Amino acid sequence: MRMYDIIHKKREGGCLSSQEIAWLVDAVTRSTVPDYQISALLMAIFFQGMTPEETVELTVAMARSGDMADLSQIPGVKVDKHSTGGVGDKTSLIVGPIAAACGVKIAKMSGRGLGHTGGTVDKLESIPGVTMDIPRERFFQIVRDTGIAIVGQSGSLCPADKKLYALRDVTATVESLPLIAASIMSKKLASGADAILLDVKVGSGAFMKTQEEAQRLAQLMVDAGNQAGRRTAALITDMDTPLGACIGNALEVAEACEILQGRGDRRLAELCSQLAQAMICLAGLGDQGAAREMVQEAIRSGRAFHTLCRMVEAQGGDSGFLQDTGRLPKSAVCREAHMPEDGYIVGLDAESCGLAAMELGAGRETKESAIDYGAGIVLLKNKGDSGKKGEPLARLYANTQEQCARAEERLLSALRIGPNPPAARALVLRRIGV
Amino acid sequence: MRMYDIIHKKREGGCLSSQEIAWLVDAVTRSTVPDYQISALLMAIFFQGMTPEETVELTVAMARSGDMADLSQIPGVKVDKHSTGGVGDKTSLIVGPIAAACGVKIAKMSGRGLGHTGGTVDKLESIPGVTMDIPRERFFQIVRDTGIAIVGQSGSLCPADKKLYALRDVTATVESLPLIAASIMSKKLASGADAILLDVKVGSGAFMKTQEEAQRLAQLMVDAGNQAGRRTAALITDMDTPLGACIGNALEVAEACEILQGRGDRRLAELCSQLAQAMICLAGLGDQGAAREMVQEAIRSGRAFHTLCRMVEAQGGDSGFLQDTGRLPKSAVCREAHMPEDGYIVGLDAESCGLAAMELGAGRETKESAIDYGAGIVLLKNKGDSGKKGEPLARLYANTQEQCARAEERLLSALRIGPNPPAARALVLRRIGV
Repeated sequence: MRMYDIIHKKREGGCLSSQEIAWLVDAVTRSTVPDYQISALLMAIFFQGMTPEETVELTVAMARSGDMADLSQIPGVKVDKHSTGGVGDKTSLIVGPIAAACGVKIAKMSGRGLGHTGGTVDKLESIPGVTMDIPRERFFQIVRDTGIAIVGQSGSLCPADKKLYALRDVTATVESLPLIAASIMSKKLASGADAILLDVKVGSGAFMKTQEEAQRLAQLMVDAGNQAGRRTAALITDMDTPLGACIGNALEVAEACEILQGRGDRRLAELCSQLAQAMICLAGLGDQGAAREMVQEAIRSGRAFHTLCRMVEAQGGDSGFLQDTGRLPKSAVCREAHMPEDGYIVGLDAESCGLAAMELGAGRETKESAIDYGAGIVLLKNKGDSGKKGEPLARLYANTQEQCARAEERLLSALRIGPNPPAARALVLRRIGV
Repeated sequence: MRMYDIIHKKREGGCLSSQEIAWLVDAVTRSTVPDYQISALLMAIFFQGMTPEETVELTVAMARSGDMADLSQIPGVKVDKHSTGGVGDKTSLIVGPIAAACGVKIAKMSGRGLGHTGGTVDKLESIPGVTMDIPRERFFQIVRDTGIAIVGQSGSLCPADKKLYALRDVTATVESLPLIAASIMSKKLASGADAILLDVKVGSGAFMKTQEEAQRLAQLMVDAGNQAGRRTAALITDMDTPLGACIGNALEVAEACEILQGRGDRRLAELCSQLAQAMICLAGLGDQGAAREMVQEAIRSGRAFHTLCRMVEAQGGDSGFLQDTGRLPKSAVCREAHMPEDGYIVGLDAESCGLAAMELGAGRETKESAIDYGAGIVLLKNKGDSGKKGEPLARLYANTQEQCARAEERLLSALRIGPNPPAARALVLRRIGV
């Protein structure tokens, strides 16, 4: 087989055979084809797309390019959950403990944040003492004991994806639905769960800007997962405005604790409840109605919050920080932003809020950037709320006044104020397979 | 400036600015951007194209990426001629000496053949003793003395084109009209002629398969040449059937001598006459009518043939081989192919004939392949001729019977025979700027 022929075939809109895709992924993994041929193929795929069948083949081949986790030592149904990334998206910290408290087994590998979207690894590491670097046997043990553990992604997971992603990142070929789907799903398959729930975000703060695009991506991933033998489902959820009140690592841990204790932002709580229900259904532990009651009971009884505390302790952290979240890291400087005029908040652009949080030090511009766990934004008002000019809008935390001033400017530019309340946008826009 | 942004802009269908193109060509020349970014850009250009303005900018920037030949030491108007390549295309060997005999100065740099199309360098080198590797001062001296010299392309000509072409060749991005136009014209600009005549071939044996495509390519190149300050014109000519009777290096030299002496294939002679007239017009030495008479006179008087002989002598060859072409190299084995049935030849696919000649050893499969100067095909019949079953159709020359047998099979597969003569196809399908 020759790489030239594969590039030419795709350039002409052809469909790559499973043999060709297997050869390609092997060649990428073993570096037996030069990067300049791979990037030409990636750009051809950007323009010509891939069929659902090609996407499945690519996903499975990439999953098998490195270690495939074997979770059979953990009894019960293992369910993974993946969010395509958003601003203020701390759902994994909430949904995982709830589902685990309801009997779902969660052996999750997570990534770090990049750009204006956060990552679960960074959020957990903002709790003093917590480590994400846990040997496999201990990882399994924690899941067996507490129902949940969240660790960093192993370096030997999906080397083909790692290579392809690094090339896509520098050749403007990231924004291809089949390549995105294969990249996400190959890691999920290699992580070894029996079932997978996808939270595909759509809106200004998400990677997918339109619902149509989000649906196509979700369907591709659900099909790839199911055809690879894993029960897979997706919720398509709104990410036009930040999720919840907090953006920033320690701030989001604090907000997660609030929700797990039955308090906090109703919209965030409702999304987490729906995601947890879907995981319970995927695990075969109950239907929608039963799952909803199980979730409510797990929160009301304190078992969900207790599960997070046990996991944090097991991973080396002190759950005292969760009991009293005021002790979590907080940056030195705090600045309050105010309503610039009277009216209703009819828009609060999520991407701009995410960029404001990065400005404060809460995010990474490049993979090498250091982050400030105590930095971020607490929104005192969100879309739909009203206020008078001068009323507090948000609190900004950073290490310098300059960061706060720049972030405030960005936050205010994200704000749209009108005389009437905005039309409500549904939180869960579409469900696929659950 | 960042390569990523340039790739992204082109991917989205944007138009690159002259600053961006200049930056790009400089980065390609100095290897300061990685090949994998360049090939991604090339594929994006394949899909999104380039405007005529971008094509001109790219052409000029590539021309300037290396040495620009300065022909001012040669008095008179220097005219270059370029064919996009065909099967049996020996026009440079004929047109050059005719035009030179009429007062045009021709300081030509030529390339080698690759694939099923031949190259002027290989054809001339089939004459024992001829060298194409001539120092600049001597090159200029030969042009001053005889009116014409043909040398190999200097290694320092258009390094950016060399780099880009090598990448296009292995990433399936050759077939892009703006990239083809820029590649050809950058070398023509760097070669230093005052005026440029393009022979854009169209048909089965040519790179351009449709007239519409050929016209677009020709117009792009003519515009690029004119906007770079060189008088540029193009003829679009038929390449559905082989040009003339001979395919193969020494065989084509012999045929060129025939035409220059007023004999041989009428269709080939007519094309050469028209090309030479166009060069004379571009040089400002006469209008169409005058040029036609000058060409006829140059052949009738023997001055055109004498010019080729003088050039060959000046470049180290023995013109005795031209006076008696039977002395030119000829491969050991000769096989005659015959008409498989009665009728008219209504089609003789040029590309298949070119591939048959390669099979015989006359062409190169890769840049490193050795070629057999004495190998090739002499067509005894061509499209429009009729014959009875068993009549001689062609003579095949190679080093082995096996090569001859394989080539005969391919040649016969290129042949279409019908009961009636085929409709005549014009030789010059379109003229641009002359």
